[in-house]
Amino acid sequence: MSKGRLEAFSDAVIAIAITIMVLELKVPHGADWEVVRPLVPVFLTYVLSFVFLGIYWNNHHHMLHAADRINGKILWANLHLLFWLSLIPFVTGWMGENHFAPLPTAMYGGVLLLAALAYLILQTAIVAHQGTDSKLRAAVRKDVKGKLSAVLYVVAIPLAFVNQWIAIGLYVFVALMWLIPDRRIESKVGR
Amino acid sequence: MSKGRLEAFSDAVIAIAITIMVLELKVPHGADWEVVRPLVPVFLTYVLSFVFLGIYWNNHHHMLHAADRINGKILWANLHLLFWLSLIPFVTGWMGENHFAPLPTAMYGGVLLLAALAYLILQTAIVAHQGTDSKLRAAVRKDVKGKLSAVLYVVAIPLAFVNQWIAIGLYVFVALMWLIPDRRIESKVGR
Amino acid sequence: MSKGRLEAFSDAVIAIAITIMVLELKVPHGADWEVVRPLVPVFLTYVLSFVFLGIYWNNHHHMLHAADRINGKILWANLHLLFWLSLIPFVTGWMGENHFAPLPTAMYGGVLLLAALAYLILQTAIVAHQGTDSKLRAAVRKDVKGKLSAVLYVVAIPLAFVNQWIAIGLYVFVALMWLIPDRRIESKVGR
Amino acid sequence: MSKGRLEAFSDAVIAIAITIMVLELKVPHGADWEVVRPLVPVFLTYVLSFVFLGIYWNNHHHMLHAADRINGKILWANLHLLFWLSLIPFVTGWMGENHFAPLPTAMYGGVLLLAALAYLILQTAIVAHQGTDSKLRAAVRKDVKGKLSAVLYVVAIPLAFVNQWIAIGLYVFVALMWLIPDRRIESKVGR
Repeated sequence: MSKGRLEAFSDAVIAIAITIMVLELKVPHGADWEVVRPLVPVFLTYVLSFVFLGIYWNNHHHMLHAADRINGKILWANLHLLFWLSLIPFVTGWMGENHFAPLPTAMYGGVLLLAALAYLILQTAIVAHQGTDSKLRAAVRKDVKGKLSAVLYVVAIPLAFVNQWIAIGLYVFVALMWLIPDRRIESKVGR
Repeated sequence: MSKGRLEAFSDAVIAIAITIMVLELKVPHGADWEVVRPLVPVFLTYVLSFVFLGIYWNNHHHMLHAADRINGKILWANLHLLFWLSLIPFVTGWMGENHFAPLPTAMYGGVLLLAALAYLILQTAIVAHQGTDSKLRAAVRKDVKGKLSAVLYVVAIPLAFVNQWIAIGLYVFVALMWLIPDRRIESKVGR
Repeated sequence: MSKGRLEAFSDAVIAIAITIMVLELKVPHGADWEVVRPLVPVFLTYVLSFVFLGIYWNNHHHMLHAADRINGKILWANLHLLFWLSLIPFVTGWMGENHFAPLPTAMYGGVLLLAALAYLILQTAIVAHQGTDSKLRAAVRKDVKGKLSAVLYVVAIPLAFVNQWIAIGLYVFVALMWLIPDRRIESKVGR
Repeated sequence: MSKGRLEAFSDAVIAIAITIMVLELKVPHGADWEVVRPLVPVFLTYVLSFVFLGIYWNNHHHMLHAADRINGKILWANLHLLFWLSLIPFVTGWMGENHFAPLPTAMYGGVLLLAALAYLILQTAIVAHQGTDSKLRAAVRKDVKGKLSAVLYVVAIPLAFVNQWIAIGLYVFVALMWLIPDRRIESKVGR
């Protein structure tokens, strides 16, 4: 089985998800500053989701680059990840339009959590299918960021109902954790 | 004629269909649990259609991998399949928004049936264009799943007007039939 | 300059245009046969436009396959073609929703005409950039179908204001002219 | 790191942005000339934005063609560019629907400016990562057009509040500056 089409299909789905999100930025009726104000939270969630999808594309790129072989299980684990990523435009729009109300903010974290778990499942499926001395296996053992992200989402979701800004702060923290240049990214396999 | 662009174009259409379906999950006005409840059936049909499109992408991937040569007939049989797949977002939205009412549920099965027939036509066109001792030809003769799926859709469509849950149950059964790991997928050509 | 990215970009634009057209098939409110009836003309225009975009993808595929070299003029002639193709979802939705009223029917022909002219311009730009004894040059000289299509659109557009069914009939005739298996397609370069 | 997936992902995002813009051309209710008139400014902005996105795709194509190596910084600089390009459909729709009112016209220029700066950042990141005698480095030093475009946007944005047609005129001038055949494009690396 070739990994070329798997990469191409994943690229296409992530590219579409990242681009159709802009359709949730509804063109306002009116042309003064007042119509711009309610768009600000929608725009900010758009930026956050764009960064998250960019991180996923980036990590996916690296992980598959290190994979030598693909099987049916990996194909489905990948589709499972794409499923949760495809829901990001929906929760982005919902959280933005409701100006970070508790429930949509928790749901946003829920989709991020399920995408993170799907990523870990995919990683496990790929590692299991490579040889025992694969570079990927070594890289994954140290995947602290991946596991920490999932833990932070679990913490953030209930906190959204206490104070949604704590949850938002945790989401932004996870995004920054991945964005900050990481020398290992350049020198090692994996994320 | 190269099969590379055929694969790339099919990947793009399936990726777009699978991703724009989420646009039918309309961002609700409001941010409490009450606005979530009517979304549940829409979400469940989204999951079902995501799985069906995933299965088609997966099978398409395997079938074309086994094809050596492409001709004009195959190009059009492929476009015919993509046509029915492109209608899945529409019937998904219709069935979900009407909470599995009989007519949309039957129509959903109708589109699945026509996609299944289009797949069988494409398979036949590809086999006819390969050599007589092609691996694909042997695999297709045993394509019990493909034919059984079509039969189950034919049964499900009228039953949707008796009790729509029987139809839904049959659609879910077909999806599971394809999802359950099948050792042959890994070892043989075809679906 | 590589033609790989030109093909990939064109495939993506045509795939998106062909798939987002389904968004004009608005999910109806209600679940009985009555809500289906007004969708019939929208569905029929969808089929027609799907076939036209399929023909363009097919022909584009063949033409670029025969091209050896690409330059800046070809890139822009290609973008010009993609521009008119990207408008097909719009005129499709307009004609369908207004049940083939004269003005949208004429506009639909106008976009088809401008796409056909853009295709001829692209063809000329590609031929001009190949060697004088290129296979493409010979194939293009005989491109009767391409020129006849443009002539038929020119005839159909004013006739849409007399009787729109004559215009629709001519559009369908052009589509069938391209769809009918053409032995030359398999044996020669070009469309 | 391979630049193949970077190109494919960028192509997909630009292709989607250029194609979903047509969704802002809302299918009008009615079928006479009167419903067409308010669409004219929307259509004209669509043409302008299509040309801008076409120019970006074109330049991106050339720049990456000349790049030998990719790193994490380049991946993120590229995503940053794609972010601003993904906002073009939004500002296009807003400017078009409000018939070139001052604020949306200035915002349109703002997004163009930020995209131009993102392009210059990406260019710098790529040049920094190539060898000191790279062809790209030489080409970039002469990138007068890229810098002049940014300056013209800076001038146009405040002028949109004086008279929006001056701003529009400047945007059109920038587009034409890139569109006009440039012999260097064919003979040299870069834009």
